[in-house]
Amino acid sequence: MIIVLRSDASENSVSELVNYIESFGLGVEKVIGVSQTVLAVLGDTAALPNDIICDFEAVEAVKGISEAHSLAGRASHPCDTVIDISGKTIGGGGFALIAGPCSVENREQLFTVADSVKKSGASFLRGGSFKPRTSPYAFQGLGGEALLLLSEAKKLCGLPVVSEILDKSQLSLFDDVDIIQVGARNMQNSELLKALAKCGKPILLKRGWSNTIKELLYSAEYLMSGGNENVILCERGIRSFDSATRFTLDLSAVPVIKSMSHLPIIVDPSHAAGRAEYVRPLALAATAVGADGIMVEVHNDPPHALCDAAQALTPEQFDAMCKKIFAVRKAVSSCDD
Amino acid sequence: MIIVLRSDASENSVSELVNYIESFGLGVEKVIGVSQTVLAVLGDTAALPNDIICDFEAVEAVKGISEAHSLAGRASHPCDTVIDISGKTIGGGGFALIAGPCSVENREQLFTVADSVKKSGASFLRGGSFKPRTSPYAFQGLGGEALLLLSEAKKLCGLPVVSEILDKSQLSLFDDVDIIQVGARNMQNSELLKALAKCGKPILLKRGWSNTIKELLYSAEYLMSGGNENVILCERGIRSFDSATRFTLDLSAVPVIKSMSHLPIIVDPSHAAGRAEYVRPLALAATAVGADGIMVEVHNDPPHALCDAAQALTPEQFDAMCKKIFAVRKAVSSCDD
Amino acid sequence: MIIVLRSDASENSVSELVNYIESFGLGVEKVIGVSQTVLAVLGDTAALPNDIICDFEAVEAVKGISEAHSLAGRASHPCDTVIDISGKTIGGGGFALIAGPCSVENREQLFTVADSVKKSGASFLRGGSFKPRTSPYAFQGLGGEALLLLSEAKKLCGLPVVSEILDKSQLSLFDDVDIIQVGARNMQNSELLKALAKCGKPILLKRGWSNTIKELLYSAEYLMSGGNENVILCERGIRSFDSATRFTLDLSAVPVIKSMSHLPIIVDPSHAAGRAEYVRPLALAATAVGADGIMVEVHNDPPHALCDAAQALTPEQFDAMCKKIFAVRKAVSSCDD
Amino acid sequence: MIIVLRSDASENSVSELVNYIESFGLGVEKVIGVSQTVLAVLGDTAALPNDIICDFEAVEAVKGISEAHSLAGRASHPCDTVIDISGKTIGGGGFALIAGPCSVENREQLFTVADSVKKSGASFLRGGSFKPRTSPYAFQGLGGEALLLLSEAKKLCGLPVVSEILDKSQLSLFDDVDIIQVGARNMQNSELLKALAKCGKPILLKRGWSNTIKELLYSAEYLMSGGNENVILCERGIRSFDSATRFTLDLSAVPVIKSMSHLPIIVDPSHAAGRAEYVRPLALAATAVGADGIMVEVHNDPPHALCDAAQALTPEQFDAMCKKIFAVRKAVSSCDD
Repeated sequence: MIIVLRSDASENSVSELVNYIESFGLGVEKVIGVSQTVLAVLGDTAALPNDIICDFEAVEAVKGISEAHSLAGRASHPCDTVIDISGKTIGGGGFALIAGPCSVENREQLFTVADSVKKSGASFLRGGSFKPRTSPYAFQGLGGEALLLLSEAKKLCGLPVVSEILDKSQLSLFDDVDIIQVGARNMQNSELLKALAKCGKPILLKRGWSNTIKELLYSAEYLMSGGNENVILCERGIRSFDSATRFTLDLSAVPVIKSMSHLPIIVDPSHAAGRAEYVRPLALAATAVGADGIMVEVHNDPPHALCDAAQALTPEQFDAMCKKIFAVRKAVSSCDD
Repeated sequence: MIIVLRSDASENSVSELVNYIESFGLGVEKVIGVSQTVLAVLGDTAALPNDIICDFEAVEAVKGISEAHSLAGRASHPCDTVIDISGKTIGGGGFALIAGPCSVENREQLFTVADSVKKSGASFLRGGSFKPRTSPYAFQGLGGEALLLLSEAKKLCGLPVVSEILDKSQLSLFDDVDIIQVGARNMQNSELLKALAKCGKPILLKRGWSNTIKELLYSAEYLMSGGNENVILCERGIRSFDSATRFTLDLSAVPVIKSMSHLPIIVDPSHAAGRAEYVRPLALAATAVGADGIMVEVHNDPPHALCDAAQALTPEQFDAMCKKIFAVRKAVSSCDD
Repeated sequence: MIIVLRSDASENSVSELVNYIESFGLGVEKVIGVSQTVLAVLGDTAALPNDIICDFEAVEAVKGISEAHSLAGRASHPCDTVIDISGKTIGGGGFALIAGPCSVENREQLFTVADSVKKSGASFLRGGSFKPRTSPYAFQGLGGEALLLLSEAKKLCGLPVVSEILDKSQLSLFDDVDIIQVGARNMQNSELLKALAKCGKPILLKRGWSNTIKELLYSAEYLMSGGNENVILCERGIRSFDSATRFTLDLSAVPVIKSMSHLPIIVDPSHAAGRAEYVRPLALAATAVGADGIMVEVHNDPPHALCDAAQALTPEQFDAMCKKIFAVRKAVSSCDD
Repeated sequence: MIIVLRSDASENSVSELVNYIESFGLGVEKVIGVSQTVLAVLGDTAALPNDIICDFEAVEAVKGISEAHSLAGRASHPCDTVIDISGKTIGGGGFALIAGPCSVENREQLFTVADSVKKSGASFLRGGSFKPRTSPYAFQGLGGEALLLLSEAKKLCGLPVVSEILDKSQLSLFDDVDIIQVGARNMQNSELLKALAKCGKPILLKRGWSNTIKELLYSAEYLMSGGNENVILCERGIRSFDSATRFTLDLSAVPVIKSMSHLPIIVDPSHAAGRAEYVRPLALAATAVGADGIMVEVHNDPPHALCDAAQALTPEQFDAMCKKIFAVRKAVSSCDD
């Protein structure tokens, strides 16, 4: 930490400051520059409250220096993390296509969709079991029953499955789920993150709609520092002042995260768009911006879907979109300079 | 639901729409106006997806009519809810002063603060036990030990206590807590809300920093529809583009909530401000805007607080602020026209 | 306008409402439904204040029906607008590459950049003359001198030029500019828009960083209703709570605008990103999402640029990016289904 | 400027950095600490682009030190600015009540309102002449005619008048206006600000709805560095994700600005609220938070107002509100500790 002193700071006021810092067991080194004098604080300054330091009379400004050397950061882990799930990988140059219904509604619906998305090229099957709904009167998901249907679908179609957990007490039901999803509303549910850190399964961690990228990485840090390094980040739209789309998809998060972290980052265009007609252009944009994959909602009968009906693609729309995605992938990755 | 038809809608396209609506078991009545024709949909339209209706060729616009008659809404409950906690009330014209340290750190700290805030006029003692922190490396609270200290403090000073829960598995530890707080990060943790609906204690429900007032009322609805009508709402700042304060305190939420709901609404100026010097003016503003109370962080030694040091008031600052608050209360409520 | 009456509205209260509406010279038709009664207001309701209507005792809800039939809207103009500028077109399926320095600094800088971006495939040359800066102490642009240099550059390289105007008093200096840009800060400068409506030149209208898409279209309406139909819209990032990028590029604005309006929409990834390393991925995403073009800042010596140095690409970076853009364009538009 | 070097920076990479800095004519001093080495850059670093420095291989972090010593800042001007307008003052402990119609509509309306607000205790009369409207089809104000009516009203009621300017070409019409208002949409219209810096009249500068407090102070700096020190700042609501009110009134801006600047800061609760029923509680909150005044819209017949009808108070509502405001003022300022 660097503390810039006011040019008119009295000796007394500087002593008071130095005493305060030393009360935390830290050392202080004085650096006298041409126009300004600076204190360098030596040692682990994590416990020292910046804002309090700012309030000392002698202080003009306080500057932190080193970011905590985080587990999620590129600095400590320059190469991309690649996560292997039953032979399918996420991160490190591949492209994961995760597709399926918002909610598992019944066997026929799930199996029809699973079959069709697999044929179109999906590598993972998603399906909601426990649904986090704004209103208590909205459909809350089939819960454990949905997870059993997902297990069956997985056996039949061979795709690893992704489903969202809402509470650590549900964990035992997720034994046959390959990737456990933490939704936007739970991104900062620290108790859930701590439990998932111990579960031994890859976690798909969605960015909260009002969380910064740094906060997303801190939530990943809860998982990683607890022992789970298999973390997949997911951008799904942030809340802005414009309601033209359900959320504002922040595609710049992809290159920003790529530069800050080694973790894979995928994009969910469905929840951001809120409408099927915008899903395809946003999915293509996510592909072009360099995401490690996308997660898309597909339903065999969108007009009668029990949840988020307006944003679901039909299997035919999904298939046409996949062809375009593969073409854009090729264009972006070919002849890399 | 009112569906406005396009002026050039073909008979076929209208039939297609009517069939779709009838597939949900609903009736349709056609109203032919001067310049526009309108369909009135009869019955419970909750399951009918607005956005899908919009996509029908025949449709120009869709208009919902009646808000769900919610338990939290004024319509179904015109009088203010008054919550009685060991003889102290919140809502209905009184003013609750909730004060105490961000985190319970040790017996001496808690008892010193409890004693001082009581003398200044506080009606409730707050103290953090389980702390929801952005970083896993930050102080996470003393947990159950803090709750035991709060019980002791309650016996000594006689003030009912408020503490935050993070997960439903912690519920048994909150037996002696008078008001259980749900923090901003957990406002939409539906599993926690469902559990708290059954706990028989008043809940202090903080607005998420990126949640609308409607969403806050929906979260209250989780508690109320599950059987718990003792819900206290709390505005604590929303996230905006400006970082001059930690969050942007949305004081207009108070009159808006007063007009929409019968539940009491208090204000937490400490977390919004992020700095002690802004707490007092914001607390006075909260009083003047008509809040049912405020919740403020007080610490006997702010510069060495383990959590949110910069926003804690000293007991002396709190005492001076209380005097002003009482004066403003009197000015606002006197000779009401 | 449809007014839904309260089920318990008295006859008196309904009469009062009807009288008020009729005081605006409008007619009222009563529609009695099964569970609700509705008033249809006949005539041009533009002058009728919705919010006031809402306050009448008899009223449960007010629903507007028809959007004003705007000149910028798709409804009145189903085909894409194509703008022809000296034989180069924007809109209707082509892709405009606008590139050049943030500010024109001197002849050598401008000509070097103009020459290089043309070789890489740019179709328009941009160059700032009058710069809208947050601080009065920052470089304010070369003004008229810059416009003279742009004229020279245009003759030499043959590319039409784009430059930003700040005030209508500068208009006479823009005679030789092909596309006049209105910046984000001036999107709602109605006096400037009214003057530009009469200028006879295509206008590049940037979205304000806190303006909705609807407001952008209303600003286009100022130009169009004043007689200028050659309007090019531009998404350049909106302000959000995250400062990881300078602004949050809202790429969903592209398909949303495509569905609402016939006007061309281009994307400026440079100002949104704020950093050169993020410009390329965002430019590729803009291409994939269906934009009609992009506008990018290029500088021959970014580290010494007088304005926005960190976001400028070198000519080499721009050239490499163009190759990728052309590949993505091909992938997206090929074999369209 | 302080540049923190990477611990593994090579000598070559440091030389490269030093050469770059010296190419701006600046000096560099090396400070070798215990765990980190730091470069102190000496001289005026305003032209040195921080972001470019960050990109040098040798650099871990860059820290600016001194804020520009601005004219609007407290540092250079510790006492509150007090602006005297025909014997009425704004700033320095007084409280300015500015009231009047959103738009001047006709003589009768203006005179009725002027007379009534004066009786209630208003110290200034506001009235819109040129109106900045989102839509070109909305009422644009009476323009010069409104300014003539304001002059008449001023003579009759004796209150100084406030009106908004949209373009510098209108300046000659504002001769008899006492305070010229710059609206939110024009806060960063640098050409207008430069012209107003020379006009010799006090300026009421409204914060743009998506501008930070720092940017507001920079806009004040345009006026002050151009020669006009009579600047009154105004908070009028910022844009957030919640549409429960028209804008989100950021009352924390008042204490923040008080701590950063010596300029007076008033609050406009009418435009933030968007609805008359919320104006009074927000006005009381603005008073309690320490604002130097408020500006409120009053209309003799709100339901037929030509502009912003829903947010106008009747003269009776305004009168009742003023009584409360005076009481809160007294409570807040009495027996100050």
